[in-house]
Amino acid sequence: MQKADGMNYAPKGKAAPVVGPGDFPIAAVGLDHGHVYGMSNGLIESGAEIRWAYDPDPDKVKRFLDTYPQAKAARSKQEVLDDPAIKLVVSSCVPYDRGPLGVEVMSHGKDYFVDKAPLITLEQLAAARAKAAETGQKYFVYYGERLHSECSIYAGNLIAEGAIGRVLQVIGLGPHRLAAATRPAWFFERKSYGGILIDIGSHQIEQFMHFADAQDAQVVSSRVANYANKQYPELEDFGDATLTADNGATNYFRVDWFTPDGLGAWGDGRATIMGTDGYIELRKYLDIARDSESDQLYLVNGKEEKRISTHNTVGFPFFGQLILDCVNRTENAMTQERAFRVAELSLIAQQQAIRIEA
Amino acid sequence: MQKADGMNYAPKGKAAPVVGPGDFPIAAVGLDHGHVYGMSNGLIESGAEIRWAYDPDPDKVKRFLDTYPQAKAARSKQEVLDDPAIKLVVSSCVPYDRGPLGVEVMSHGKDYFVDKAPLITLEQLAAARAKAAETGQKYFVYYGERLHSECSIYAGNLIAEGAIGRVLQVIGLGPHRLAAATRPAWFFERKSYGGILIDIGSHQIEQFMHFADAQDAQVVSSRVANYANKQYPELEDFGDATLTADNGATNYFRVDWFTPDGLGAWGDGRATIMGTDGYIELRKYLDIARDSESDQLYLVNGKEEKRISTHNTVGFPFFGQLILDCVNRTENAMTQERAFRVAELSLIAQQQAIRIEA
Repeated sequence: MQKADGMNYAPKGKAAPVVGPGDFPIAAVGLDHGHVYGMSNGLIESGAEIRWAYDPDPDKVKRFLDTYPQAKAARSKQEVLDDPAIKLVVSSCVPYDRGPLGVEVMSHGKDYFVDKAPLITLEQLAAARAKAAETGQKYFVYYGERLHSECSIYAGNLIAEGAIGRVLQVIGLGPHRLAAATRPAWFFERKSYGGILIDIGSHQIEQFMHFADAQDAQVVSSRVANYANKQYPELEDFGDATLTADNGATNYFRVDWFTPDGLGAWGDGRATIMGTDGYIELRKYLDIARDSESDQLYLVNGKEEKRISTHNTVGFPFFGQLILDCVNRTENAMTQERAFRVAELSLIAQQQAIRIEA
Repeated sequence: MQKADGMNYAPKGKAAPVVGPGDFPIAAVGLDHGHVYGMSNGLIESGAEIRWAYDPDPDKVKRFLDTYPQAKAARSKQEVLDDPAIKLVVSSCVPYDRGPLGVEVMSHGKDYFVDKAPLITLEQLAAARAKAAETGQKYFVYYGERLHSECSIYAGNLIAEGAIGRVLQVIGLGPHRLAAATRPAWFFERKSYGGILIDIGSHQIEQFMHFADAQDAQVVSSRVANYANKQYPELEDFGDATLTADNGATNYFRVDWFTPDGLGAWGDGRATIMGTDGYIELRKYLDIARDSESDQLYLVNGKEEKRISTHNTVGFPFFGQLILDCVNRTENAMTQERAFRVAELSLIAQQQAIRIEA
């Protein structure tokens, strides 16, 4: 049996449309990572209509159209960009291409929703920031390990209600299954994916800033290593970092490609959020040796220890908020500054990282 | 109900004497922290005979003699030091006094077993190192969060058997209940306790070096804060650090005084040990909202996810090894260099720490 890998992890939720049928036509361009299915699911459940799919590789387009038969294959990227009906372009193209595609999309008067990592150099970031400011278009990012995780949404709600007091610290663990044989060539090319702290670290920084309600943060320390995959010299199989937010909250995160084959999910993603009055632990994708169901939330406060199964509770409000942000030009799903600043901090963490040779 | 605090946490194990009755007489001098009961339990279970207790405070002596009626109250520290039968002096005096007492004990031709943190300035460390080298006496440290934790001992055995391959990382969380009303004045005086990374961080560094089988390590980053206890201006209620070992293994740990009242133990101590071939998670003192029994070990490897209840399995071999190290002048319990180097690294982490003001 092929063990689950993160590449094909595409959560489904309940339909909760925020717009009428046909009101919000979208297109998918660049289908290199399976995340595009999770992104599309979220938007379609929220009322978007997927009209076009484009990728230079016809096999990727075929698989996409098999999943979403309502979409049509575009003959070119330009055909999508030139369709005035399309409000938003969704992409999970190779990370190196994400920034330039976003600039092109925004230049055509459309909003953009791209898989993380959204940008992998500071130059790409500067170009995207400038184009977003110039055009007023939006550059959304799929930081899925919070946005597409029900227990994470639930935790955010609890925190907002004051369930653990002031948030002092967030620890995030983001292990992933390597499944090297299933990975495309670009996955192993540093120039294409940017480095582990950019690639899968960006999730963690977004999660930290959200839970800590931080406006900004600084990278204190970071490390990367290729411990056990030397046959892929440009892969980093380990990375970690500490950050301190402007409000004093602290963060530690570790990301890695060491999920063992015996784990019943692609990764034992965890987050521990410590507040002045209690703490929350998220066991995002399973509860090891206890429960294979995802989205287990543990809350310890002044009164009790409590386990809450959050699967099929709060859903994924991000996607509906994103659509309404496009329609109403608001910033409820995520501010543009947050999306870009998270990318920037992951670039800085990567750039400053101590490389462990061992 | 007074909630459990770490101050009175004194594990008991099965009797497993390594010496005959009366072969290994010991004394307790300086009873300021309740850890002396855990230290004494471990040694008595391993065959030591507790003969003397001394503390300037008669109430502390009385409580000790109530627990160990076989001991006698000494009239002075000197009476203990002058008794040639006593092989080892056990102490949990105020941290600031631990180093000087150790020097005195070693000068009297006895070995020393002291609560962590064993030394709280670099000068104290240098003096203890010099005296140990000069006299050949031993300066043992009670790093109880590994040495007096069955699941930690069990994990060490699994790691030694290769259960998770090469150890790449150890993450340790050491939350503690503040229970401020129960704490003596010295607990809040920086000069007396040294700082949070020295006080409760030293456990974490010892655990890291042991599990990672490191000979040495460097402090990469560290932080301290007093987030929510400003009425105790010299208390630090939060600390964390990252270290890298000489063999490339990495460490992150957090220590804090934020255990909420609803937790059924004094702290939700955890350790996650990631190897090339799997990982181990320790839930040391309870398994929140699942099981109030201590010492739950989770193992995920290439084959499976597994929970192992390790309470009442492997016991606490450290104490018997310590006695035999004293008898045979070996270093099986812990090398002298490890005990001192851990202390030194915690001093460095504390000294280098970024203080968060928030």
